[in-house]
Amino acid sequence: MIQKISLKEKFSLFDEHWSPKIIGELNDSYVKLAKVEGEFVWHHHDNEDELFLVVRGKLTIKLRDQDISLKEGELVIIPKGTEHKPVAEDEVQFLLLEPKTTVNTGNVRNERTTTDAWI
Amino acid sequence: MIQKISLKEKFSLFDEHWSPKIIGELNDSYVKLAKVEGEFVWHHHDNEDELFLVVRGKLTIKLRDQDISLKEGELVIIPKGTEHKPVAEDEVQFLLLEPKTTVNTGNVRNERTTTDAWI
Repeated sequence: MIQKISLKEKFSLFDEHWSPKIIGELNDSYVKLAKVEGEFVWHHHDNEDELFLVVRGKLTIKLRDQDISLKEGELVIIPKGTEHKPVAEDEVQFLLLEPKTTVNTGNVRNERTTTDAWI
Repeated sequence: MIQKISLKEKFSLFDEHWSPKIIGELNDSYVKLAKVEGEFVWHHHDNEDELFLVVRGKLTIKLRDQDISLKEGELVIIPKGTEHKPVAEDEVQFLLLEPKTTVNTGNVRNERTTTDAWI
């Protein structure tokens, strides 16, 4: 049964930071939602391009040569191989789109590495 | 040079209905924006799942066994092979995500078939 997905409703189902939740799948990719605050780790994905779309708040994606600041309704696509580091001064809610093979910390494995769950 | 994309700004660049515009690409897919009003044709995509995320207005995706009505902040993923027909009583703006191989009218070729352009 095909069902619609409300971003607002899905965001209400979790509070954890830096722990993306899967809300859908299409082709070889997952659609995920994340809440984050503070700094993540520098990393890159060898084989996966990644899309970030801000739904609420402000998110900065630091790159080695620039900072990209996103607010609600703005997105960025980070091409594979590009080192990046998400940072949020206050809590931000965003949608992520990435291949199913993507590990959140990319080439890095540490305590921030997660296995993402469906909600 | 990686640049952020504002949905609002991109939507301001075109007025045509039923003529999706490409705003980004990741992995094997395009991110597109569309403005539509009225009824589209029944069609399906043999090999491509398709995501619709409403940004402004109301969009109904008719399926053979149900109607899915989406408003701002709601999305649906239509699996490959599923017949569907988008309908909008008033103008609606939405984001589409689909493989680059996707033809807007799927298995049908008619005057509504488009070749999507970048904006």
